[in-house]
Amino acid sequence: MKTYNVAIMGATGAVGQQMKEQLEKRDFPVNTIKFLASSRSAGQQIEFKGNTYTIEEAKPESFEGIDIALFSAGGSISEQFAPEAVKRGAVVIDNTSAFRMDAEVPLVVPEVNPEDIAQHKGIIANPNCSTIQMVCALQPLKEQYGLRKIVVSTYQAVSGAGIGAINELKSQSADFDNAKDAEAKMLPVKSAEHHYPIAFNAIPQIDKFTDNGYTYEEMKMINETKKIMHDDRLAVAATCVRLPVVTGHSESVYVELEGAPTVDEVKQAIADAPGVVLMDDPANQVYPMPLMAAGLDEVFVGRIRQDLDNPQGFHLWVVSDNLVKGAALNSVQIAESMIEQNII
Amino acid sequence: MKTYNVAIMGATGAVGQQMKEQLEKRDFPVNTIKFLASSRSAGQQIEFKGNTYTIEEAKPESFEGIDIALFSAGGSISEQFAPEAVKRGAVVIDNTSAFRMDAEVPLVVPEVNPEDIAQHKGIIANPNCSTIQMVCALQPLKEQYGLRKIVVSTYQAVSGAGIGAINELKSQSADFDNAKDAEAKMLPVKSAEHHYPIAFNAIPQIDKFTDNGYTYEEMKMINETKKIMHDDRLAVAATCVRLPVVTGHSESVYVELEGAPTVDEVKQAIADAPGVVLMDDPANQVYPMPLMAAGLDEVFVGRIRQDLDNPQGFHLWVVSDNLVKGAALNSVQIAESMIEQNII
Repeated sequence: MKTYNVAIMGATGAVGQQMKEQLEKRDFPVNTIKFLASSRSAGQQIEFKGNTYTIEEAKPESFEGIDIALFSAGGSISEQFAPEAVKRGAVVIDNTSAFRMDAEVPLVVPEVNPEDIAQHKGIIANPNCSTIQMVCALQPLKEQYGLRKIVVSTYQAVSGAGIGAINELKSQSADFDNAKDAEAKMLPVKSAEHHYPIAFNAIPQIDKFTDNGYTYEEMKMINETKKIMHDDRLAVAATCVRLPVVTGHSESVYVELEGAPTVDEVKQAIADAPGVVLMDDPANQVYPMPLMAAGLDEVFVGRIRQDLDNPQGFHLWVVSDNLVKGAALNSVQIAESMIEQNII
Repeated sequence: MKTYNVAIMGATGAVGQQMKEQLEKRDFPVNTIKFLASSRSAGQQIEFKGNTYTIEEAKPESFEGIDIALFSAGGSISEQFAPEAVKRGAVVIDNTSAFRMDAEVPLVVPEVNPEDIAQHKGIIANPNCSTIQMVCALQPLKEQYGLRKIVVSTYQAVSGAGIGAINELKSQSADFDNAKDAEAKMLPVKSAEHHYPIAFNAIPQIDKFTDNGYTYEEMKMINETKKIMHDDRLAVAATCVRLPVVTGHSESVYVELEGAPTVDEVKQAIADAPGVVLMDDPANQVYPMPLMAAGLDEVFVGRIRQDLDNPQGFHLWVVSDNLVKGAALNSVQIAESMIEQNII
């Protein structure tokens, strides 16, 4: 069996750690592995399959001999190093937003558009976490009934903003009675001017604002969904909200279909979809929740209801671990799909 | 100036306490006041405008001589005692769901349909908290542009489930590292079979489920909105979710209008509406959040955006204190509106 020389760029981050764990757990065919980070983290030790590795400072030469480089160290790092890795023969699977909307770069969720991988020119982009779980849930409905319009409101976990945001939620949560005056430095955006407490709060801002009043996170969901689903005419609207949840993004999705299936047909389509678990039994209070989805691989869908006014409209509640399927697992699955399709 | 004999039924609850505070704060023309509760709470002392009152056990005779009775002690208590109060000449303003959809009972938000109060036959219903703030935000758009369709996803605070739910969130939040295994007895519904931790979680169930897969909370938002706005043809869909927030409900609202105003016209209409505060300046990260709205009277609206595909579609983020405008304040405002309209 063929094995590969793998590098993880951003090995100390929340997603980088998950990438390492997914490679171990899925027994990815690794020949050699290399853990890269900024000079600040270089020198730290990391365990992989029982062996100890030292994290190296990323340099262009670091990618010599690498077959697959998994990137998750921020957009500017990807812009700097991904071309260097490609120049040296690696395929870069990039979890940042740097190249996602680049027409030359496939944006891939293996359950939805694995065929796009073959078009790559060295870089394959991993979509935004909140986009991935939504398109996994909606792809079976697109295939069977066609999609017309999506309106999504998100309930996003702080781990999407990194380990610092998790620590801030933890320290803020310890002082229940002074939540309003809690010290805040990380959210909604570390580099933004104003910071707000997340404990016992809901912040309707993820990433910075664009000129049209939508945030970049909302525009990512809108634009990436159209690109992944190859449908520029699909209407997509998003409102993205950060919650005091550690890990696990939830989404309230309203979707209008081209067809008008029954609610049971919609449930069956979702139950049959790869990577998706139907978890929908209101009589027994069965529906997905982030606290239960954290650490799991699948996209969980429940609360499926037909709209009361529009027989082509359906409401879904979609939950998944934003670090796993929303990031690290999807990146590793892209690599696996390349192997399966004999593209690498 | 005419003054009134007032009773608060359910005086020890989260909403009952707010009703008392609103009467004090707004200097409601009280002649006498009486605090009623179950036998369990009877005998407790309560302060009102510097005087101490003893909470009395509610009995039918308790309402002799009462002009206005504010009820917030649960639906079955309202069913039992509201007719007794009416029989004795009181007007009941009921904050439970017991009579809201009764065709004989006006369901009133004073900013929206004060004229309905005159139709009362002794009972006036106060709408559900999540309905009130939404209709306050949408009424100016209805008046100026007409409403066609509403899709709302809620982000609701635990105080809507009572003081016990607040205490449970507090105790669960203290153990950040064991959130998944936290003891849960109150949410989503105290009397339901299964309970789930709310700290660091999001529970897509508020109230029990109806046969159509929607919860009662969702059906309240749908049916009450149509009744308050006098429009059975208005399409309304709701997904209601409980969050680890103490007080302050947030709502992501997508609305389709009959007209197609500019986003600035929509913002102006909302800024001009009574009881509503426009809080919408993305460049300066100004938008409402529950932690900041808690304790305030108004309905706050921000993140107003035109839909990118439908010029008649708009997205809004609506936040208000669920115990204040969502319950106690609205009840007191109904009483004030009766006085203004010379109905009492």
